[in-house]
Amino acid sequence: MKTTPVKGANDYLPAQARVRDFLQEKILETYRAAGFERIYTPIIEDIENLDKSDGGENLALIFKIMKRGDKLEKALAEGGELCDMGLRYDLTLPLTRYYANNRASLMSPFKVIQTDRVYRAERPQKGRLREFVQCDIDIIGSESRTAELELILTTAKALRAVGLDSFKVKINDRRLLRSLLLSLGFAEDSLDGVCIALDKLDKIGPEGVAAEMLGRGCPEAAVNELSALLAEGAGLDAVKARADGEAVSDLEFIMKSVAEIGGVELEFDLSLVRGQGYYTGTVFEVVSSEFRGAIAGGGRYDKLIGKFTGEDVPAVGFSIGFERIAAILAERGAAAAGRPRLAVVYDERDFVKANAYAEERRADYDVTLIERPKKLGKLLGRLEEQGFASFYVIGWEETEPKTLGE
Amino acid sequence: MKTTPVKGANDYLPAQARVRDFLQEKILETYRAAGFERIYTPIIEDIENLDKSDGGENLALIFKIMKRGDKLEKALAEGGELCDMGLRYDLTLPLTRYYANNRASLMSPFKVIQTDRVYRAERPQKGRLREFVQCDIDIIGSESRTAELELILTTAKALRAVGLDSFKVKINDRRLLRSLLLSLGFAEDSLDGVCIALDKLDKIGPEGVAAEMLGRGCPEAAVNELSALLAEGAGLDAVKARADGEAVSDLEFIMKSVAEIGGVELEFDLSLVRGQGYYTGTVFEVVSSEFRGAIAGGGRYDKLIGKFTGEDVPAVGFSIGFERIAAILAERGAAAAGRPRLAVVYDERDFVKANAYAEERRADYDVTLIERPKKLGKLLGRLEEQGFASFYVIGWEETEPKTLGE
Repeated sequence: MKTTPVKGANDYLPAQARVRDFLQEKILETYRAAGFERIYTPIIEDIENLDKSDGGENLALIFKIMKRGDKLEKALAEGGELCDMGLRYDLTLPLTRYYANNRASLMSPFKVIQTDRVYRAERPQKGRLREFVQCDIDIIGSESRTAELELILTTAKALRAVGLDSFKVKINDRRLLRSLLLSLGFAEDSLDGVCIALDKLDKIGPEGVAAEMLGRGCPEAAVNELSALLAEGAGLDAVKARADGEAVSDLEFIMKSVAEIGGVELEFDLSLVRGQGYYTGTVFEVVSSEFRGAIAGGGRYDKLIGKFTGEDVPAVGFSIGFERIAAILAERGAAAAGRPRLAVVYDERDFVKANAYAEERRADYDVTLIERPKKLGKLLGRLEEQGFASFYVIGWEETEPKTLGE
Repeated sequence: MKTTPVKGANDYLPAQARVRDFLQEKILETYRAAGFERIYTPIIEDIENLDKSDGGENLALIFKIMKRGDKLEKALAEGGELCDMGLRYDLTLPLTRYYANNRASLMSPFKVIQTDRVYRAERPQKGRLREFVQCDIDIIGSESRTAELELILTTAKALRAVGLDSFKVKINDRRLLRSLLLSLGFAEDSLDGVCIALDKLDKIGPEGVAAEMLGRGCPEAAVNELSALLAEGAGLDAVKARADGEAVSDLEFIMKSVAEIGGVELEFDLSLVRGQGYYTGTVFEVVSSEFRGAIAGGGRYDKLIGKFTGEDVPAVGFSIGFERIAAILAERGAAAAGRPRLAVVYDERDFVKANAYAEERRADYDVTLIERPKKLGKLLGRLEEQGFASFYVIGWEETEPKTLGE
C-alpha cells in the first residue's frame, strides 16, 4: 500500500496543524467579532451545478465522482454520463446555492464566513495544491457600498490579527474599467479580451499588455492612451471624468471612508482586473511588498445568485489566501501556538497517581502522560525536539515540573 | 440549477454551525489538554489503499473519483480502471497511512486527534448521512493497557465537557471473547460468524442470536452455555477462568484503575463485539440510557499499520459519534454558543461613526453593522428571531445598547 498522500494533497504534522488551527481561529475570531456567521456546505456538489457555473478555467479542473450501482451500469452500457457529482473548486458557487436554498431562514443582509477545503485537479508538477483551504467572507443582499467597506476593514483586521502588517489593499471597479475603455475607443466586443490582457500586467509588463491588445486588433490610439495611464499609475482623479459616474462615486465613498477611519492603506489601481468571470462591480486585492502575488482578493458579483433563484441578489466577497499565509507563517517559524506542553513520566503501577498529577497541571499545561522508557535521557531529548516546555517524573520528591533544557 | 445540497449531505445554518463549532471546540480542548495533538490528512486517498483496507462493508460505500485527461481516455478505450482515487470512508485508514509516512517525525507513542469529514455512499432513503464528521483520538506505538485507560478517561471527559452526563462505558476484549468461545466448544472457524451474530444482540435479542448460531451449525451445548452467560449479564469474574489470561489481566487492570480514579462508570460486557474487522484486543463503546445506540466506540488494532510498513505497530483508538451528539445537543436546544451579538443600526452617511461605535463594543459583543431599513420595527423582530442579544441605533442620545425584547 502507498504511504504517501495523493499528489497535490498534504499530510500535516502536529506543528503544522497547530499553525493552521491558530491561523483559522484568529481569522474566525475577527470575522465573528465583526458580525459574520459561519456556515458549512458540502464538499460534494451536483455535477451540473458545477459545470454550469461561471468558474472560468476552474471548470476544467473539477474532480468528478462516479455514479454507483445500477446507474453506473446503465451509463456504461448506454454511453451516458459516468459521473453525477463533483468536488467543489471554490466556496462561492456552493455559497450561492446555499443562499438560494436557505434564504428564508437567513439574516438579511447575510454576512457569512466560510473557511473550508476546495479541490482543483491542477498539474501537481507545478507545485500547486489539489486540496487546499479557502477562507471567505461575503455579504449577500446589500447593494450598498458599505458592504465593500466592511469587507475591506474586516479582512485587513484579520490579516493584522495573524501578524501581517505591511500590506495594502488595491481597488478597482469593473464598471469603471469598461466605461473608461469604451471612452478611450476600445470596441464593446473587445473589452473581455482587453481585460484578460490587463490581468497579465504583472507577468508580461506594460509592453506585453500593449502588444497583446494590438494583436487583438484594438485601435492604436486607444492602446497608447491606456498604456500612458497605466505607466503613470493613474489615480481615480485622472480617469473619473471619462468613467461610469456611479462606479466613481462608490469608489470615492469607499476610499474616503477608509482614509477617515485610518489604519488601512487603500489604493485605486486601474490595472486590477481579477480573473473570475462573475465580478460585476468593485474588485479588490491585498498585496504586500514582502511577498509576490496577492494574499487576498475579492469583488462584487451581483448576477451569480440569480442563476439559482431567477432573481438577482447583490453580493460581494473577500477571500483570504489561507495556504499562502500559512506558508508565510511557517517560513517565519511562527511560535508554536497553543498552551505550553508538559510530559508526565510514570511507571505503569503509578498510572492513577500520574493521572491525578496531570489533572492538577492541566490548568496551566496541555499534559501528556508517558510511560517511562528504559532511557529517560533519550525521551527528554525527544520531548525537547517536539517542543515540550516541561516534564515531571512521578515519584520525584519536589512537585514542580522541570523546564526542559535546564 | 439545483438549489438543494446533494443527497445525504447537509447545508448547516449559522445556528447549527455554531453548535457544531462549539461541540468540536470543547472536544478539541479536552483532547489537547490530555496531550493529544491534532493532524490533518487529505479527504482523498489512493483508490488501491481504500480498496485493500480492512473496511468491511464500508468498502462497498466508497465514492470514487474518475481519472482525468489522457488516463481517462486510455482507460475508456482499453476497458481499464476508470478511477484512481476515492473519498475516505473513515479516519483510521488515513491515520495508519499517515503514521507509516511520517513516523520518523512523530512523538512516540503518538497521541493523535482527528476531527474531520468522511464519506459513505449510504442509501439516502435510510436517513443516513453520506458526508459526516468523525472525531477520533488514537494512541499509536504503545502496547500498554494504559493507552486504553487514557482513551477511556479522555473520551469520558470530552463527553462531559459537551454536557452529556448519564453514560457508561462498556468494555470487552476480542482475545477474551475468542478464547472463551473456544473453551465453550465453538469451532475455531466459526468464531467470526459467532461474533457477527453476537453483534446483533441489540437488534434481534438473545433468542435471535442463539437461533442464528444454531443455524450456522454451532454445537447446541456451546450455544446454550453462551446464551446463559449472556442472559445473566456475566461479569468478568464469571468467565475469567475460561478465557485468555493476558486479556483478563488487561481488563482487570483497566477496570480497577478506572474505579480507583472515579467519575467514570466502566462495565464489562461479554456481548460487545464492534463491527470492524481490524480490532485485535480491547473494544469499547459508550452508551446512554437517554439514547439508543452507541455515542462513541473504539478498540485496539495492532495489525493495521503493518499493512503499510511491513512491521506491526500497536495502536488503539476511540471515536466520538460527532453527528449523533450534534443531533442530541440540537434536540436539547443547546444554548447558542459564542458571544452575545449586538446589531448597530446606521444610515450610510454615519458609517464611520457606526464603525467606531462597533469597535468599542467588540470587547463584549460580536457586533454586526446594519444599514437602517425603512421599517426599524421589522428589523428588530428579525434580529430577535435570529438570536441577537441587543441593538443600538447610531444617533441615539444614550450610548448603551438596548437589550432586545425589552
